[in-house]
Amino acid sequence: MVKVGIVGATGYTGSELVRLLLGHPKVEITTLVSRSESGRAIRDVLPHLRGAELPPLSPFEPDSLSRVCDLLFLAGENGFAMQHAPAWLEQGMKLIDLSADFRLKDAQTFESWYSIPHRCPDYLSEALYGLVELTETSRYEKARLIANPGCYPTATGLALAPLAQAGWIAPQGVIVVDAKSGVSGAGRSKATTDYLFSELNDNFKAYNVLKHRHTPEIEQNLQSLLGEPTRIRFTPHLIPMTRGILSTVYAPLKTPVSSEELHSLYDDYYAGRPFVQTRAPGDFPATRHVYGSNRCDIGVGVDERTSMAIVISVIDNLMKGAAGQAIQNMNCLYGWEETLGLPITAVAP
Amino acid sequence: MVKVGIVGATGYTGSELVRLLLGHPKVEITTLVSRSESGRAIRDVLPHLRGAELPPLSPFEPDSLSRVCDLLFLAGENGFAMQHAPAWLEQGMKLIDLSADFRLKDAQTFESWYSIPHRCPDYLSEALYGLVELTETSRYEKARLIANPGCYPTATGLALAPLAQAGWIAPQGVIVVDAKSGVSGAGRSKATTDYLFSELNDNFKAYNVLKHRHTPEIEQNLQSLLGEPTRIRFTPHLIPMTRGILSTVYAPLKTPVSSEELHSLYDDYYAGRPFVQTRAPGDFPATRHVYGSNRCDIGVGVDERTSMAIVISVIDNLMKGAAGQAIQNMNCLYGWEETLGLPITAVAP
Amino acid sequence: MVKVGIVGATGYTGSELVRLLLGHPKVEITTLVSRSESGRAIRDVLPHLRGAELPPLSPFEPDSLSRVCDLLFLAGENGFAMQHAPAWLEQGMKLIDLSADFRLKDAQTFESWYSIPHRCPDYLSEALYGLVELTETSRYEKARLIANPGCYPTATGLALAPLAQAGWIAPQGVIVVDAKSGVSGAGRSKATTDYLFSELNDNFKAYNVLKHRHTPEIEQNLQSLLGEPTRIRFTPHLIPMTRGILSTVYAPLKTPVSSEELHSLYDDYYAGRPFVQTRAPGDFPATRHVYGSNRCDIGVGVDERTSMAIVISVIDNLMKGAAGQAIQNMNCLYGWEETLGLPITAVAP
Amino acid sequence: MVKVGIVGATGYTGSELVRLLLGHPKVEITTLVSRSESGRAIRDVLPHLRGAELPPLSPFEPDSLSRVCDLLFLAGENGFAMQHAPAWLEQGMKLIDLSADFRLKDAQTFESWYSIPHRCPDYLSEALYGLVELTETSRYEKARLIANPGCYPTATGLALAPLAQAGWIAPQGVIVVDAKSGVSGAGRSKATTDYLFSELNDNFKAYNVLKHRHTPEIEQNLQSLLGEPTRIRFTPHLIPMTRGILSTVYAPLKTPVSSEELHSLYDDYYAGRPFVQTRAPGDFPATRHVYGSNRCDIGVGVDERTSMAIVISVIDNLMKGAAGQAIQNMNCLYGWEETLGLPITAVAP
Repeated sequence: MVKVGIVGATGYTGSELVRLLLGHPKVEITTLVSRSESGRAIRDVLPHLRGAELPPLSPFEPDSLSRVCDLLFLAGENGFAMQHAPAWLEQGMKLIDLSADFRLKDAQTFESWYSIPHRCPDYLSEALYGLVELTETSRYEKARLIANPGCYPTATGLALAPLAQAGWIAPQGVIVVDAKSGVSGAGRSKATTDYLFSELNDNFKAYNVLKHRHTPEIEQNLQSLLGEPTRIRFTPHLIPMTRGILSTVYAPLKTPVSSEELHSLYDDYYAGRPFVQTRAPGDFPATRHVYGSNRCDIGVGVDERTSMAIVISVIDNLMKGAAGQAIQNMNCLYGWEETLGLPITAVAP
Repeated sequence: MVKVGIVGATGYTGSELVRLLLGHPKVEITTLVSRSESGRAIRDVLPHLRGAELPPLSPFEPDSLSRVCDLLFLAGENGFAMQHAPAWLEQGMKLIDLSADFRLKDAQTFESWYSIPHRCPDYLSEALYGLVELTETSRYEKARLIANPGCYPTATGLALAPLAQAGWIAPQGVIVVDAKSGVSGAGRSKATTDYLFSELNDNFKAYNVLKHRHTPEIEQNLQSLLGEPTRIRFTPHLIPMTRGILSTVYAPLKTPVSSEELHSLYDDYYAGRPFVQTRAPGDFPATRHVYGSNRCDIGVGVDERTSMAIVISVIDNLMKGAAGQAIQNMNCLYGWEETLGLPITAVAP
Repeated sequence: MVKVGIVGATGYTGSELVRLLLGHPKVEITTLVSRSESGRAIRDVLPHLRGAELPPLSPFEPDSLSRVCDLLFLAGENGFAMQHAPAWLEQGMKLIDLSADFRLKDAQTFESWYSIPHRCPDYLSEALYGLVELTETSRYEKARLIANPGCYPTATGLALAPLAQAGWIAPQGVIVVDAKSGVSGAGRSKATTDYLFSELNDNFKAYNVLKHRHTPEIEQNLQSLLGEPTRIRFTPHLIPMTRGILSTVYAPLKTPVSSEELHSLYDDYYAGRPFVQTRAPGDFPATRHVYGSNRCDIGVGVDERTSMAIVISVIDNLMKGAAGQAIQNMNCLYGWEETLGLPITAVAP
Repeated sequence: MVKVGIVGATGYTGSELVRLLLGHPKVEITTLVSRSESGRAIRDVLPHLRGAELPPLSPFEPDSLSRVCDLLFLAGENGFAMQHAPAWLEQGMKLIDLSADFRLKDAQTFESWYSIPHRCPDYLSEALYGLVELTETSRYEKARLIANPGCYPTATGLALAPLAQAGWIAPQGVIVVDAKSGVSGAGRSKATTDYLFSELNDNFKAYNVLKHRHTPEIEQNLQSLLGEPTRIRFTPHLIPMTRGILSTVYAPLKTPVSSEELHSLYDDYYAGRPFVQTRAPGDFPATRHVYGSNRCDIGVGVDERTSMAIVISVIDNLMKGAAGQAIQNMNCLYGWEETLGLPITAVAP
């Protein structure tokens, strides 16, 4: 059994990791770190985890973790992992970081979008960006540090990859990514007026319209697929629901193709990938279809009137968009079956 | 007092007309027609209207309406108004039709998108398309038949008008309209599995992705502003909430402008219009800001990285998107103050 | 025009007062006090109020208010009004306090349930408890200080009054009040994890189960109707919705009566009261029926198997449960028509 | 592997059975019957089940089922199972019926509350009522036909059992059960106006107030615990959320006990039961704590002012209230570990 620890165990992503790891056959949870709730039982902080055997929430003592953990999941805020990663790697632990710290390959880009200096830019090239379906399996063999992708970049990267790699996107056109997310993406510690139930219920809005931090991550993914830099227009919105992301992607086509041809492209591209489901032409997925699942479902169609490919992808932002993909990365890291411990079917209604 | 009747009084739009007309100082509701519920008191069908004095729901007897009504609001399904409008106009009544029957100027376009033959295409040119802020006041003077705009075309038309009339949109680029609506737009009679609470709650999806009927109406509005035909890419989505539309519009710019210049354009364009509120640059509205109000709030910004104008507009689909704008049209028709009987502030939280 | 000010104008109750007063024909809003947002325009803090002419948010300067206000609405937290009321009354202003400070007649009871000392217990007897339908009109004539009732006590008091005054309740039995509220009752400043959207959406729970502060207020109301002390069992719950309270009241009957007799009792009791609507026997109201309205709708029935009267009442907690009733109290205070400026029909769907 | 079939596989309960059985290590799903959707792939009807290997939806051919099934789950409407159960039992299949057909022991009581004649009253005594925690394990040994309990009776029975068996309830007092449910309990086929999203969102109401069919089932459970007939007052309400039941139970106490004593009673009673979690005194559960789990969490307290025990229980109505408990019953029927294939932790937020 691999011994795993979670730093930031009481956040929405952290507690989802706990829930999934409890059902995983090859790991043992040895440590749950919570800087704000240490000393308490996690079942008292998060009653939905009652009924499970779990270690108590412990304070953050970075130097002692490697004695009890082979692998650490880092579910802290941006800027946290970079402070400790070098030491932990040296102590021999593997790390899966769910923050943005190691996602961007360029330290300057990171600093300009996140407004914090990077503490260990030398590790950016080593970090493996773990958007699993777009990453060669062989790259996991020597990996020690995995940057778990952002939720929007996961949904959008999977929506764009087949089109980009096929070279079907018109080079001059702008790709518009209009994305919508449930509120849990904001996290459990965002206790401000803006995130109160009464402010968001029966309400819908865009946010960070002109500058959202996931923009460079989406562009970096696209560049590695296209082989050249590109610019996307990314607008996130907040849906009055808890879980789920739907990304509506508008890509101008280089040459005319039919909806059926587009569908074949996607179907072939994702053949054999258990967590990506391509829908029939004209059939588009809803977020509920992947609620609580690690799947990404994708629907495609061509708008012949405007020569645009319309691609709609859905994920559960806490699963494939965070904790689920982190487990999938762990499975790849240890050479286990990709689906181990991860639900494929969703919880509905 | 002008005597008004409502045909289709128990639908979501019809009952919202009732509520607003009850508070209007210059009209008297003489007739409430409901084909499905005739004979009942509206307070028993729709308890939210309890406490008001209202005529009973009457059966549909088209020939007797002109005896008791000066003005009819037609809140029936598409294809209904066109069957009776010519006779009613001949009998001297004024008509405000909330269906799609008289919105499109071209009968062929209507028939190709709505899949029903038009019964009185000769009246399409006479019908006044009542997107009030985009219609010259003088055109109301002789109007008898008003086509009340669709909800998406209202939100989108108001979002695009200043840009289009200023000639700032790049002629070759595609305008992307990514719109999101609350569920009440589907109406009260849509009792199918797809619209059940358990299917839509905590769920988000696109619908009619490749072909939605509001596309030609939006294009017709744009053409009359631009002076030439154009193509837009319009994608509607369904939000798990009852009321509200948010339209995110991406328009490629002909020449670079700043967010501040864009804001000034909108601010000037809508100066003096009580129901359109332009937000400061970078401030974007939420649907809740106009819930229960006849307002349309608009936020604008320029994405310099992609040379795109981003315009976000919000309306309450049952108010400015349907019943509220119908009352506004009535006010214009009779030369009354535009705001009479219409709430400007919204109900929040 | 009566000059009114609101202290606490940016809270949920305060801003609802603003919205209602804007539509009231006999008042002028001269002052909006916000201790946290002074200096800003209220339209920037609360965009749903855009489009209205309003004074800027001013700091709290208690001594200057009487120069510009005839009447103050106090929408602050518990313990605030009692600090200033005596001075303000002396300066000649009338006060309508929406906090709990003057609701209980007994200072000791107040202190034991609210855990703060009362600063001016001498004013408790003067304060008029303004549950309008249960208060003789003549008592408003000399009133200067009105204690606006709590939301739960309003819904529950109206549900119990006819039964209690008729003497139909079994003297030994316990009255069970199982009440459910939308989240807006918690207020806009309650920015803690517990009230985040993601915590409350698709969730339901009881709170303050063994001791809720509205218990003594409900008992005080019941005692004044029954003429003797009584004990109720009151349990509040939180509904994943924004507005609305539904109170399910179980009262053991002294002697058998039919549902029809019970209905007649209520119908007679509330005859002529514009804001209370009694439903037909077996017809029970939903919270949406009074959303945005100042109404209280009541449904009644008898469970013959257990000899219990079941009474279900609904209000909008921000309207009849707070701001709406405060306006109604103002109307009574000045001898205006009770319904002035107050919506009777509700906003639905 | 036990071969199982599901009749009614596309309903909310049926599809939840499918999802759970997919993860169960000792069964194989051989047959999915859907009378309305036969011939289609279940992944096309219910996309949340995509990614799983499942047989196609087949028409209902009652005589052929025993050739491919050892066990049938019956997830049809009331009145369906009783038509076929005798023949199926004779053919050697075991049956778990999720309808009400075999829950009540008395055919007359069934007929008076359900208004349909019972087709095989002789089987009522044989049927094992499977509220697992209240049923002796030995009774499963010879069982062939299990009546899976209703959702409200499950939540309420577990809330009342310790109090009832301890003899702590005052014999003359009325037990009030004020229950609240998410909308999914109404089922997927209830496509009427009343269950539309726009009618129920941001709304709360009671339903079937004076006569709900779960009343006699709750009373039957209570009678078997108390040893004598009793009467409860049961009122169900509809919460604007999809899953979850919360039952607030008010039981008059025979003699005074403290909250701590009450808590000990419950803690002891449910010691060792994996799916029932007793909360600390004064800690009451929320429905989200058991969302997607088979748990029932219970909080207790004593209101000394009224001598009442307050017990609040929560379940997921589709899990412990339907499909989850059906799997639990299957586990007991075959002598497998009770928790096999059933989640204990919940999906949150």
